[in-house]
Amino acid sequence: MNQSFPSKLLEHAVDAFATLPGIGRRTALRLVLHMLKQEEEHVDSFAKALTDLRKNVKHCKICHNICDTDTCEICADELRDKSTICVVQSIQDVMAIENTQQYQGVYHVLGGIISPIDGIGPSDLNISSLVERVKEGNIKEIILALSPTTEGETTNFFISRKLQPYNVRISTIARGVSVGEELVYTDEITLGRSIINRIEFKTKEL
Amino acid sequence: MNQSFPSKLLEHAVDAFATLPGIGRRTALRLVLHMLKQEEEHVDSFAKALTDLRKNVKHCKICHNICDTDTCEICADELRDKSTICVVQSIQDVMAIENTQQYQGVYHVLGGIISPIDGIGPSDLNISSLVERVKEGNIKEIILALSPTTEGETTNFFISRKLQPYNVRISTIARGVSVGEELVYTDEITLGRSIINRIEFKTKEL
Repeated sequence: MNQSFPSKLLEHAVDAFATLPGIGRRTALRLVLHMLKQEEEHVDSFAKALTDLRKNVKHCKICHNICDTDTCEICADELRDKSTICVVQSIQDVMAIENTQQYQGVYHVLGGIISPIDGIGPSDLNISSLVERVKEGNIKEIILALSPTTEGETTNFFISRKLQPYNVRISTIARGVSVGEELVYTDEITLGRSIINRIEFKTKEL
Repeated sequence: MNQSFPSKLLEHAVDAFATLPGIGRRTALRLVLHMLKQEEEHVDSFAKALTDLRKNVKHCKICHNICDTDTCEICADELRDKSTICVVQSIQDVMAIENTQQYQGVYHVLGGIISPIDGIGPSDLNISSLVERVKEGNIKEIILALSPTTEGETTNFFISRKLQPYNVRISTIARGVSVGEELVYTDEITLGRSIINRIEFKTKEL
């Protein structure tokens, strides 16, 4: 869409929105024209929320999760089990696992996964700080909760090798048929794994 | 998605993005985390583009199109035919028609269409200023280019009645089968209209 904009100001705002992932120029125009209809204070507070975030947000010095203070709420929580670390790719993953309310340990945010195609190597990720945490002791288990892709498996392998010298249990989250999912719609690899990694049937769990 | 955010700053930015049309909280989070990875200057200029637009953008005093000066480029252009006014709903419509490079007249942006359900009446639209333009004379034709919906037809009817006292030709844009579209995939109403409003076959046009 090679559009001639009636206003340079409009064009600049559309250009800015179009830099966002998944937002094309047509959508950007729609969003900007929506903003234009809002009160000036609303637009100002929208802009301020963004600049404030970028300027003042911090990353937890322990687990690299996003936070407003030096240490994130999870690491600072005395009730969490500090001997279990769940290794995740991103902040979204922390939020997703927290939403399940099933995990009482702490996290370690890698900030990505090893992906040679995208030029992301182990040194670009928060791996050495994870090794440091384990080296300091008192860690009993590392749960690798990365995506079940080639990149995820590579990263799992790299981390597990780095942690081999230390006396720590390493596990990965279970792969299997989704709860509520029909067997016939499950992909073959997942279904195959769910048979290999079958678990003992306990009436209690039902 | 009832999420607990690890940071208030993050939550505020996500809340801001989620006010945009078609952007849910999950998408908002993805966009905000993308912004967070950008340089601080990039985020600042993004925010500035928005606030600058809201603060400084103007609407053409003749046609209500968006512009940076008092009169838009189209109305100020001496080569455009000022005796033909194309009435459109929004600024996007002006841009869409301009992109066709088939129209040499000027525009009048209503800023919406009559829609009792949404509480939009004739007085909420730029209709009286259109009547003023016609009243001042020198207007030969009004082209109604609104959406072919009930609301669009209602607005067409209202405007045409308002313009009845003046000696001006009123037309609407042609409805018909899209160029390149297969007949079988055209909806019945459009196909029906395309037969009723058939035009003389000219070999020259091919």
